[in-house]
Amino acid sequence: MNIEQLDTPAAIVDIAKMQHNIDAMQVRMNALGVRFRPHVKTTKCLDVVRAQIAAGAQGITVSTLKEAEQFFATGITDVLYAVGMVPAKLPRAMALKQRGCDLKIIVDNVTAASAIVEFCKTANITFEVWLEIDTDGHRSGLSPDDDALLAIARVLRDGGIDVGGVMTHAGSSYELNDPEALAALAEQERAGCVRAAQRLRADGIACKTVSVGSTPTALAAKHLEGVTEVRAGVYVFFDLVMANVGACATSDIALSVLTSVIGHQPEKGWVIVDAGWMAMSRDRGTSKQARDYGYGLACALDGTPLEGCALIGANQEHGIIAVEHADDLARRFPLGMKLRILPNHACATGAQYPEYRALASDGSTLTWPRFHGW
Amino acid sequence: MNIEQLDTPAAIVDIAKMQHNIDAMQVRMNALGVRFRPHVKTTKCLDVVRAQIAAGAQGITVSTLKEAEQFFATGITDVLYAVGMVPAKLPRAMALKQRGCDLKIIVDNVTAASAIVEFCKTANITFEVWLEIDTDGHRSGLSPDDDALLAIARVLRDGGIDVGGVMTHAGSSYELNDPEALAALAEQERAGCVRAAQRLRADGIACKTVSVGSTPTALAAKHLEGVTEVRAGVYVFFDLVMANVGACATSDIALSVLTSVIGHQPEKGWVIVDAGWMAMSRDRGTSKQARDYGYGLACALDGTPLEGCALIGANQEHGIIAVEHADDLARRFPLGMKLRILPNHACATGAQYPEYRALASDGSTLTWPRFHGW
Repeated sequence: MNIEQLDTPAAIVDIAKMQHNIDAMQVRMNALGVRFRPHVKTTKCLDVVRAQIAAGAQGITVSTLKEAEQFFATGITDVLYAVGMVPAKLPRAMALKQRGCDLKIIVDNVTAASAIVEFCKTANITFEVWLEIDTDGHRSGLSPDDDALLAIARVLRDGGIDVGGVMTHAGSSYELNDPEALAALAEQERAGCVRAAQRLRADGIACKTVSVGSTPTALAAKHLEGVTEVRAGVYVFFDLVMANVGACATSDIALSVLTSVIGHQPEKGWVIVDAGWMAMSRDRGTSKQARDYGYGLACALDGTPLEGCALIGANQEHGIIAVEHADDLARRFPLGMKLRILPNHACATGAQYPEYRALASDGSTLTWPRFHGW
Repeated sequence: MNIEQLDTPAAIVDIAKMQHNIDAMQVRMNALGVRFRPHVKTTKCLDVVRAQIAAGAQGITVSTLKEAEQFFATGITDVLYAVGMVPAKLPRAMALKQRGCDLKIIVDNVTAASAIVEFCKTANITFEVWLEIDTDGHRSGLSPDDDALLAIARVLRDGGIDVGGVMTHAGSSYELNDPEALAALAEQERAGCVRAAQRLRADGIACKTVSVGSTPTALAAKHLEGVTEVRAGVYVFFDLVMANVGACATSDIALSVLTSVIGHQPEKGWVIVDAGWMAMSRDRGTSKQARDYGYGLACALDGTPLEGCALIGANQEHGIIAVEHADDLARRFPLGMKLRILPNHACATGAQYPEYRALASDGSTLTWPRFHGW
């Protein structure tokens, strides 16, 4: 189906832009001498992940066991579940292991490590466990210098569990927008994770993998000495938050929401569209950045940003585009006119849709299913 | 399955609270002498809508044609599609009509009205069309006193289309929190919509239905003279935004997110849970209200709010609960402990899930599917 024939709202993936983003990241990772393990939480879409693997990605990162199950069912076996394991989720993880999935799990505390040891003894299986390292204080993980790091590793090793690596995610990179600050954070992420690995190795633990990454730090790192793999997710589509960070140009953004003009309020200068928060998500990630894009950046059907137009409001199925020079609104934005809106946050916007519409350069589209839930 | 056995995160519906909300609204509507047409966009769930209809609701309101299709497939025929119609959506609406759905559509401009007339002539069908009235300036619709109101109605009537009613939604009620201001807005909503109907009737147009509503105004209206039906959606679950508005108590909120403790950052006073923004949605609707609940109100498994705890941050699958008195955090909130989080906005949070887990008073749960997409 051609883009002009699609029902609205729809989540459009510009295939050429996506492929460019995939290739540019892979080339960069190859040059830095590290493996690349994309985070598939951004898309939850096999068509996208296939393109990432075809370009050279090795293994995937997931944020839920459902992602692990869905992608394992398509033949992808090397999977890192990058959210701290809790005992209640071990049976579901075990089921994946027993079916042949090379699932890696992570921990940052002794309680979880002890529970894994006990579970593995009882179930007579084993897991490869990585330790989660906190290199920027933004969320979970152990400080690289924390004594608990060695204590946890010993609990695992003494329980017969392979401590396969360390991993960190400097997610505070999303709050930066200066190239030097980003490079400094990338170095902090690298150095902290490598230091954690070195401490483990000095204690006799092999720790073969050193895994770091976020999209901004992956793009800002000057070198990755001691790192064996990088993870990133949103780079595949990019979004307005990433543009504000400086990780991309708005013209690199591969995801947009196709919408129709459904009405006008001429005296207010408003164009009403059928992309509300259900179509855009409630993500207002640009609200505290250098440029606040409201609920997204309104563009013409061909993707050209519309000057002086701002998606200022969103109800469930209504978006409000405020137009600066509002004369002749109904003629310039006629009822039924199709527009495209770039999202603040590609992960959140994509999650609102059962499928992407993948747009080729000739205007034709394919349906790329994505899944949701846990 | 018992609530304690559920995987997390999960969207829990407290059946008793939901039924109380449904019954209280229906009793109120009966007392006010109006029909009640619930907005099913909140839940997109047949089990919930069946309970609404069993309590006395007559017909449903939908925000997408997919909702109309899905509920029509279950036997519900009286459907109001409450988003302005555009020509490209007429074939899909026609398909519903032709299969026997009593679908009502709305317009607020001559272009759409003319397109409907043309389409109906060509396809040899007809629609019942309602006019969308703007009674609070917050979004779409015609002012009750707008000359275009009569012009549009005449285009429809002269084209052989039944102008079946007028409808309005005073969505700015979400921005209030004072009972008198809410009652005044409810009266403004009522009076504006009735005035629009009277103008149409004076012009010889029957306009049999006068439809108003939002959850806050439905609950605040002192009388509904001249109104024939009321619409409301979020009342069925309520949420923290509605609690701030004064439409409910937090103890009335029927939807919560079940989550597990997955880690701690003791020196920061943080408990990490597996309810991030994917589980809660990105909705921060309480951020500008009297009480900002962050990403939700953390409660114990039994639903009791946890004093001094705030869900201050959310990544995709990580939530951060900041605890005021953070001593002994890992003992008070042990790894794997289950909590429940009340959402800012029930419509947005529910939309993140393929199903609700409906919780009975004995702790058992049923799976209630919901759909998404367009």
